[in-house]
Amino acid sequence: MNIRFYNARILTMKDNEDIFEGELVVRDNRIEYIGTTPMESELSYDREIDCKGNLLMPGFKDAHTHSGMTAFRSLADDLNLQDWLNNEIFPREAKMTDDDCYKLTRLAVLEYLTSGITAVEDMYLTPDSIGRAFNDMGMRAEIVSGLNKFGPTVEVLEERYNELNGKYPLVGFKMGVHAEYTCDKDLLIRVSELIHKYKAPLYVHMSETKQEVEECIDRYGMTPVAFFDSLGLFDFGGVIYHGVWTTIEDMIILKNRNISVVSNPASNAKLASGIAPISEYLKRGIPVALGTDGPSSNNALDMFREMYLVTALAKLKEMDPTAVPAEEVLKMATVNGSLTLEHKDTDVLDKGKLADIIMIDLHQPNMQPILNIPKNIVYSGSKINIKMTMIDGKILYENGEFIGVDADEIYRDAEKIMERLK
Amino acid sequence: MNIRFYNARILTMKDNEDIFEGELVVRDNRIEYIGTTPMESELSYDREIDCKGNLLMPGFKDAHTHSGMTAFRSLADDLNLQDWLNNEIFPREAKMTDDDCYKLTRLAVLEYLTSGITAVEDMYLTPDSIGRAFNDMGMRAEIVSGLNKFGPTVEVLEERYNELNGKYPLVGFKMGVHAEYTCDKDLLIRVSELIHKYKAPLYVHMSETKQEVEECIDRYGMTPVAFFDSLGLFDFGGVIYHGVWTTIEDMIILKNRNISVVSNPASNAKLASGIAPISEYLKRGIPVALGTDGPSSNNALDMFREMYLVTALAKLKEMDPTAVPAEEVLKMATVNGSLTLEHKDTDVLDKGKLADIIMIDLHQPNMQPILNIPKNIVYSGSKINIKMTMIDGKILYENGEFIGVDADEIYRDAEKIMERLK
Repeated sequence: MNIRFYNARILTMKDNEDIFEGELVVRDNRIEYIGTTPMESELSYDREIDCKGNLLMPGFKDAHTHSGMTAFRSLADDLNLQDWLNNEIFPREAKMTDDDCYKLTRLAVLEYLTSGITAVEDMYLTPDSIGRAFNDMGMRAEIVSGLNKFGPTVEVLEERYNELNGKYPLVGFKMGVHAEYTCDKDLLIRVSELIHKYKAPLYVHMSETKQEVEECIDRYGMTPVAFFDSLGLFDFGGVIYHGVWTTIEDMIILKNRNISVVSNPASNAKLASGIAPISEYLKRGIPVALGTDGPSSNNALDMFREMYLVTALAKLKEMDPTAVPAEEVLKMATVNGSLTLEHKDTDVLDKGKLADIIMIDLHQPNMQPILNIPKNIVYSGSKINIKMTMIDGKILYENGEFIGVDADEIYRDAEKIMERLK
Repeated sequence: MNIRFYNARILTMKDNEDIFEGELVVRDNRIEYIGTTPMESELSYDREIDCKGNLLMPGFKDAHTHSGMTAFRSLADDLNLQDWLNNEIFPREAKMTDDDCYKLTRLAVLEYLTSGITAVEDMYLTPDSIGRAFNDMGMRAEIVSGLNKFGPTVEVLEERYNELNGKYPLVGFKMGVHAEYTCDKDLLIRVSELIHKYKAPLYVHMSETKQEVEECIDRYGMTPVAFFDSLGLFDFGGVIYHGVWTTIEDMIILKNRNISVVSNPASNAKLASGIAPISEYLKRGIPVALGTDGPSSNNALDMFREMYLVTALAKLKEMDPTAVPAEEVLKMATVNGSLTLEHKDTDVLDKGKLADIIMIDLHQPNMQPILNIPKNIVYSGSKINIKMTMIDGKILYENGEFIGVDADEIYRDAEKIMERLK
C-alpha cells in the first residue's frame, strides 16, 4: 500500500527539528518522503489522507509490559503485593495455556493501538504464542525472556533466542532474566556465559522496590546493579526495568555499561514502590524510556498516562516544577523506546525509516489553543487524541475503529478465559 | 425530551448498591424511573437508546477549576511558580475582557463534556460572563468568588451573590476569597460579616503549598485553617481547595466546622506542591472531592486523570498499595463533588434526581475483561470511555460529537484571543 498524508503537521523527533507543515508518503512499509511540498514522483497512491492540520509523529514505544496480564485487570487492586501475587495471580497463571496467552495478548494489542503504541517490549509466560499473537495482530514487538529459578532452563533460553529471532517478521527475542531475587547465582553465571557467547544485551527487572535492593545487599553485599555487573551480565549493554532505588554508584555502572532504564511510573505509584530518580539519570546521560508495566499493576496500557506521570512525579520528588520538561518526555516515549528495543528504524520519521506512525487529533478541546504541541501532548493528551495508528505501513486503528479485526470476539475470548481461571 | 435508556448497566452510587442491569427513563430534566425491568407507564419517548451493556452513572463533578485559563494551556509549563505567574499569566490576564472569559470558558466546557464532567465549581475573573457561558453551553456550575485585596470589593461580592444566584438557571454563585496570602485581615473580617449575614459557606484556596502555611504562621501565629476559623469564616461550613499541607489540628477544625476538602492531585504534582493527606481525611470523616484546577497548571480537564492520581499518589505517600481504594475515589468524583457544590439532586441516580448522567463505554479494550467496573473506571479509564454526557436531561456529547455547538468556531475564538494576548 502506498499512502500519501497531506495537510499534516509533522513532528519527526529528529534532534532540534521543529514541527512543520507538510506531507508524508508511505511506500509499502517504509517512509518514502517527508517534506513541506508534495513529493515529485510517479508513485500512485492507494489512499490519500487529508490530515486537516493534525499531527503525524513516530508511534510511542511501550518499553516494558506483560501483555498477557490483561486477564487480571481489576482482579486484585488495592491489595498488598504478597496477597496480590500469592492469592490472586500465581494460582491463576499456573492454569494458563499457550492459547490463553495468545488471546490475552491480542486484547492488549487493541489497547496499545488506542494509545498510539506501535511497538512493545513484552515479558510473559509463553514466548512463542505471544510472539505469534503480536505478529498476527500486526504489532511490532520484542519478546524478553523472563528466565528465573522456576523455569525454563538456560538451554531453552538459548533455543528460543535462536528460534524466535526471525520466526515472526514483526517480532524479535531478547535475552533476559526475571530479576535478581528470582534467580540463583549459579543460574545467573550460566546466563552470563550465554550473554558472552552471543554478545547480547541483558534485560531485567531491577531495583523496583527498596526491599529488593536491601535483600540483595544482605545476600551478596552488593546492590542488584553491582551484583549483575560483577557477573559480567552487563558486558554487552542492556536495559533495567523500573530502576526506582538505584544508588549513585549504580548509575555510574549503568552509564559505563551502556544500560538504559525503562521507567514505569504508573505501576511504581499504584504498587507504592516509589519514584525513580529520572532527573539524575538524565543529568548523567543514561537513556530513559517508558513502559506501562502489566495491566494488572497499572492498570491501563496508556502512554499518555506514563508521559504525564514521569514528569509530574519527578517534579514532586524534587519539589521542582522545572524537572523533566515535556520535550524530554516525548523523546523517552519514542526515540529512547526504540533504543531499548534495538529498533533503529522506528525512532524518528525520516526517509527510509519504517512506517510506524501515529496521528494526533488536534481538533479536540484538550489540544486547544495550539500554543505548544509537545507540551499539549504530554500535559493534556489522552487516548481520545489518537486518530490513527500505523505499524509497518499498515493502518491498524483509525477514527476509533480497529481495522481488520473483530474486537468483540477478542473481548469474548478474554471473558471465557477468565471464567475458567476464576 | 423524554429518553429511555435500555440494555444498560447502572451504577447509582447510592450507598451499598451494586451495579445492576436495567433501564433508566429521563423525563425532561429529571430521572423518572430506574429499575431492572421496563417502566410501566403511558410516557411516550422522544428517543430510546440501546446502551448495549454500557454503564450509566452520575456525571463527574469537577469541584475546583479556573475554566477561563484554557487560554494559557501549554503556554508556560516547566517553569517556577513566580516566573509563571509574574511573567506569563498576570500580564495576559490584565488584558482579558468579559468576552474573552466567556469564549474561553466555552472551550473548557467542551473538554469537561469529553471527560464526563457534568458540573464544575469555577473561580475566575468575570463571574457574570462566565456564568452566562456555562448556562449557554448547558453546563451546570457554581461560580465561586475569588475576592482578594486587588479586587473587587466586599460590596461587589454581596451584589454578585444576590444577583448571580438565580440569574442563569444552571448556575449558582458562592462566597469565596482567593486565599489567605492575597487578603488582608481587615478584608477577611468584612467577608466574615457577610458570611454571617447570609449564613453562607466559605470557599477558599488553602494550604496548597508549604510556603503559604509557613508565611501565614509567621504573620498570624496560626495556620491558614486556624486563622480563618478564628475569624469565624468557617462558621457556616465551606470548602478548602487543595488542603495539601494541613496539620492534625487543622483537620480537627475542618471536621468540627463541616468543611470539605477538594483535592487537585494533578496540579499539586505538576507544580511540585506536594501530596495531600487523603487517607487521613477519610479516616476522620472529612469529605474529599476532586478538582482539575485550571488548564494552565494541570493542564488537562480530565477527571480520569484526577481519579487515578488521587489514589496512586496516596499509595506512594503512604507506601501502602491498599490506600484510598477505587470505590472511595468514585465517590469523591461524584457524590462528594455534589456535596461541595451544594447540588443535592445530582449526587446519585435515583427517581426524582436531576438527569446529569454519563455513559461509560465498556466496549473498549481498557475496560476488558469486565471483572470489576469501579476499579476499571478508576485504574484504566480514559476520556475514550465517555460515550455520552447528559446534563439537565440534555445530551450534550455523544459518540465523540458535541451536540448543538460548533467546536471549530470555539477553537478559532480561543486562537484569536491568544493572538491578541501574546
